[in-house]
Amino acid sequence: MVAPAAAGLVRLRDTSNTRVDATLAALFDAQPATEPRLEAAMRHGLLVGGKRLRPLLVYLAGRALGASDDALDAPAAAIELIHAYSLIHDDLPAMDDDDLRRGQPTVHKAFDEATAILAGDALQALAFEVLARTGHPRLGSLVTTLASAAGRDGMVAGQALDLAAVGNHPNVEALEYMHAHKTGALIVAAVRLGGLIAVDEHDPRLQALIRYARAIGLAFQIHDDVLDVTGDTATLGKTSGADAARAKPTYPGLLGLEGAQQKAQALIDEAIAALAPLGEHAAPLADLARYMIERDH
Amino acid sequence: MVAPAAAGLVRLRDTSNTRVDATLAALFDAQPATEPRLEAAMRHGLLVGGKRLRPLLVYLAGRALGASDDALDAPAAAIELIHAYSLIHDDLPAMDDDDLRRGQPTVHKAFDEATAILAGDALQALAFEVLARTGHPRLGSLVTTLASAAGRDGMVAGQALDLAAVGNHPNVEALEYMHAHKTGALIVAAVRLGGLIAVDEHDPRLQALIRYARAIGLAFQIHDDVLDVTGDTATLGKTSGADAARAKPTYPGLLGLEGAQQKAQALIDEAIAALAPLGEHAAPLADLARYMIERDH
Repeated sequence: MVAPAAAGLVRLRDTSNTRVDATLAALFDAQPATEPRLEAAMRHGLLVGGKRLRPLLVYLAGRALGASDDALDAPAAAIELIHAYSLIHDDLPAMDDDDLRRGQPTVHKAFDEATAILAGDALQALAFEVLARTGHPRLGSLVTTLASAAGRDGMVAGQALDLAAVGNHPNVEALEYMHAHKTGALIVAAVRLGGLIAVDEHDPRLQALIRYARAIGLAFQIHDDVLDVTGDTATLGKTSGADAARAKPTYPGLLGLEGAQQKAQALIDEAIAALAPLGEHAAPLADLARYMIERDH
Repeated sequence: MVAPAAAGLVRLRDTSNTRVDATLAALFDAQPATEPRLEAAMRHGLLVGGKRLRPLLVYLAGRALGASDDALDAPAAAIELIHAYSLIHDDLPAMDDDDLRRGQPTVHKAFDEATAILAGDALQALAFEVLARTGHPRLGSLVTTLASAAGRDGMVAGQALDLAAVGNHPNVEALEYMHAHKTGALIVAAVRLGGLIAVDEHDPRLQALIRYARAIGLAFQIHDDVLDVTGDTATLGKTSGADAARAKPTYPGLLGLEGAQQKAQALIDEAIAALAPLGEHAAPLADLARYMIERDH
């Protein structure tokens, strides 16, 4: 699953996952649920949500600038809450109409459509609540970062652009614009949130992290498209070949499989080069960049 | 439409509506849209959203404690953004399946279901962004107030409880619990947000405002149920008798029409009594409480 060089990364990822899962679980265990079925759907969406890549980026970016893990728990949980809500809504029948997510029934299949809509809505609100409760001195920047990355100029715009593109024939630039919003914005927000815990808006290392995140975000998406062609359904945890079946525009479709793989590699090189101002503290971020295009699911 | 005693209230409401509409319009006019159709759907949802009751409560509560209108614009807009998003999602086919809202097509009818889901999602994110950009010294309390009122222990829980209640036969306590979440939480949040602009969490006048808001919130809902029985479709801007047709539990259904009207009146008396610690500054809030059960739509 992971190249040998990335053994240190696996340990870091396990620590990150343990921390964020504990933070998320505590949100549900702290008090009785007002509406138990709603909360069960929220938990389901969080559990099948995925790889916890965004929290890992929060921890690695924050640590690279000197933040403590304790201070990073809240932004790491917040961004995963936003990501999980977006997957629940994207899977809805009116959107991508997916029945499976990481080998599990999607929330609207495990519960029902209304509950899935509401669970997504509540996860989004909870993300901002978790962030706000930190009382961090740069809370304004933290909330603005998360909200703008999640909303009409970020992730939601990207999903709308994606839906509008089905059946169309966008060029590479249009596809990149869509992905920069749909997945890129939240990946950039992850490193910004982590960085902002330690330094202010104007720190040049934060700008370096943002350049890094833009590049790995796009590489991540290209590699996702590649896996949809080369992977199998069991490993992916979702239906292989689904993009092609749906006539979704993809990088392999536009650039060929090899062209897409080359573009992903060039972006990873660019991401690692961007980390130069952070020195050795950024080594785990460089490992993560390499892993981005080595993963098989 | 309004009793003569409330002429001052009409003026206050017009000022409030003008301010909040300008704040909301500026959010859309400031920059080109990333996804124009998405933003058109967001605007549509905001425009057909309604009476702007929650912004009015922000202004009246904030002013009663000495806040300036300028400082209240952001929280007034933020709470209306949350309200508008919730209406878009509540109207969806998987939820209440409504075609009309204030005499206009609902967002999923004017656009499509996917766009309606996304427009609601983006309006929620925008609410937190607007609040965060104030950089208010009590931003943590402001965001926590809005997020917890909007989410799994507030409005979203209420909508889930409401959907679960259709076809059931809840008693008055269960109905009240549902409404305290579905509409009450955001009405309480409106006065809290307005109040928090001027004073801190522990100010006893803030507690008085919260008692006031709980009472008018419930009275508002009871009166809505009453109007569904006594009103006509043209005045309401939505289908009259819809609750009964859908076998939705209502106050007139449980208490009789007269019993429901008496309960609403008792709550208004309680709301006005709660305002005592605020003295004459709270006179417009008392007028608003009276108007709550005099309105015909």
